Amino acid sequence: MSELRQNLITRDWVIIAHERSQRPNQFAKKIESDRLMPPYQADCPFCPGNEHDTAEEICCLGERENWKVRAVFNKYPAVSPEKEPVRKIEQSYRSIAGFGVHEVIIEHRLHNISPALMAISEIANIFTMYRERYRQLKRDPRIKSIVIFKNHGPKAGTSLEHPHSQIAATPIVPGQLRDRISEAMRYFDETGECLYCRTMKDEISASERIISENKHFVAFIPYAALSPFHLWIFPKRHSSSFEHISDEEIMGMAQILKTVLAKLYYGLNNPDYNYTIRSIPTDQDYADYYHWYLAIVPRVSQAAGFELGTGMFINTSLPEESAEFLRSIEIPISSGNLDLDQTSPPYSR
Amino acid sequence: MSELRQNLITRDWVIIAHERSQRPNQFAKKIESDRLMPPYQADCPFCPGNEHDTAEEICCLGERENWKVRAVFNKYPAVSPEKEPVRKIEQSYRSIAGFGVHEVIIEHRLHNISPALMAISEIANIFTMYRERYRQLKRDPRIKSIVIFKNHGPKAGTSLEHPHSQIAATPIVPGQLRDRISEAMRYFDETGECLYCRTMKDEISASERIISENKHFVAFIPYAALSPFHLWIFPKRHSSSFEHISDEEIMGMAQILKTVLAKLYYGLNNPDYNYTIRSIPTDQDYADYYHWYLAIVPRVSQAAGFELGTGMFINTSLPEESAEFLRSIEIPISSGNLDLDQTSPPYSR
Repeated sequence: MSELRQNLITRDWVIIAHERSQRPNQFAKKIESDRLMPPYQADCPFCPGNEHDTAEEICCLGERENWKVRAVFNKYPAVSPEKEPVRKIEQSYRSIAGFGVHEVIIEHRLHNISPALMAISEIANIFTMYRERYRQLKRDPRIKSIVIFKNHGPKAGTSLEHPHSQIAATPIVPGQLRDRISEAMRYFDETGECLYCRTMKDEISASERIISENKHFVAFIPYAALSPFHLWIFPKRHSSSFEHISDEEIMGMAQILKTVLAKLYYGLNNPDYNYTIRSIPTDQDYADYYHWYLAIVPRVSQAAGFELGTGMFINTSLPEESAEFLRSIEIPISSGNLDLDQTSPPYSR
Repeated sequence: MSELRQNLITRDWVIIAHERSQRPNQFAKKIESDRLMPPYQADCPFCPGNEHDTAEEICCLGERENWKVRAVFNKYPAVSPEKEPVRKIEQSYRSIAGFGVHEVIIEHRLHNISPALMAISEIANIFTMYRERYRQLKRDPRIKSIVIFKNHGPKAGTSLEHPHSQIAATPIVPGQLRDRISEAMRYFDETGECLYCRTMKDEISASERIISENKHFVAFIPYAALSPFHLWIFPKRHSSSFEHISDEEIMGMAQILKTVLAKLYYGLNNPDYNYTIRSIPTDQDYADYYHWYLAIVPRVSQAAGFELGTGMFINTSLPEESAEFLRSIEIPISSGNLDLDQTSPPYSR
């Protein structure tokens, strides 16, 4: 039986029309489309030895010659730090010169690994780099918002196979973020509670949409998930900005993110996906009403005219069923230890 | 030089990063992916003779045995008219039983035609059916919003080749529509003008983003187009609801839509696209501040983590350049007359 559900955080209504779909594993990618990749590729600008093929390096983790994670400028940036964010208003046209910063985080030396198969300590390295870059970028007063995101696979919009993510810093606060903040404020005013903390408590107590949980984080499919296997990872400690993630929390994030991505990898056959870290605008450090989090969107369905024309989504899966399916997926030992004390990386695919 | 532009109607900021892209024709689809389709396919439920394979017919244009356009219920509806739109609120969960109406408009008898190649009179038939269905659906007080849309090609989310579009009627007003209405109201309060009329006047006077214009409609690429070749067709007469389109305006819409779709067809090699008709919520007939229109989104680029994480878009084309490119595309005579008096359809592909 189909149902409209409202996502309180985004205010979106979603049509949960799971009668239209098949079992959760029907969303799995067909294996034929995946090509086997080599651990090193001579013409890949992100592979070790080709460091001169990227734009300027900003910093790296580990020794220069034996880096673990690299941050470099995007060779084809959407925005540039060379410009000033000058506003122009003429008739009904408003523009700002393309100021901003667009960086690439090269996540690993190996060409053919993905976070689902990395060691927890390696994912933690990536998040340590994210935090470092976030903190540095935030110092520029021209920057109002920083978004960290990963595109995995062609359906998620990436053209480069080597594992990497991106950071974009913009001179404006995106309207979507403003809207969420104003909704969260209104909720706080009405209830005295953070809407995200409330949602997390309700989800933990309902338990049916939870995928994984550790000391610092909880991963769940939202009640009104926009698309099949749309997932959120919330920090348990109320915190508005990603920059305040602690070292211990980084390990917790790495552990839960690996768990979730490995479950998607084995359950849905390495689906394309995006993830994105949603944080408060950079001119604020802390707010009682806003809570940072990470969202994962596996690209297993296709938004169509209905979504474009209404902003509403039709989700052909039942969140509770998808969550149950992911909980049931066992992660093989070969994909790496899921305990937080593990260190040796499972390099082979 | 990249630039951030604000779309006043949606309030979205778009990064126009055309330095990252190639010439407009680089967005053209590779021909190899298009298979030649037969005019009739025995196992297609929308082909003449297979009428019993669709869900119940609602109405048709022309004689039953020789229909021109058919409206049928969706066999796999996202929502159903059998339910009552009962709201449920429990803790932070809000839902409505999946009430709604989901219809399919079979646009033509031929399996292998698309609106870009239809006769103007045939497109007018489709819009006559849209208007008829819109008016009928609007009578149900449980319905709050009606969206008409078309998915052309797999990237636009369609699984069926036979030309068809869809109508979805929902028991709520989508948040996106509410937001636009409140922006349009604010603009009207500040200026005494319809924001859409103002935008149209500015675009006609700037002229550089115009694709085509006739007595009743103007087609242009918005100043802050979200993606390459994202297009709007505005009615010149101020009108809030699609249901009030006149017969003469339907012919004008058919003429300009054919022109624009044929330019996309020949210029970008039959790209996948969605179009959608945006109309005021059904409990309102007329408002000084809101203006219905048709939006076309060719699926020539891929939204990625940046778009998901911010709601902002990166458009790798320059709207002015894309418009110039489309203006320059000549439509071959074989694709059918573009004058409003033409009647004989160009059936062959």
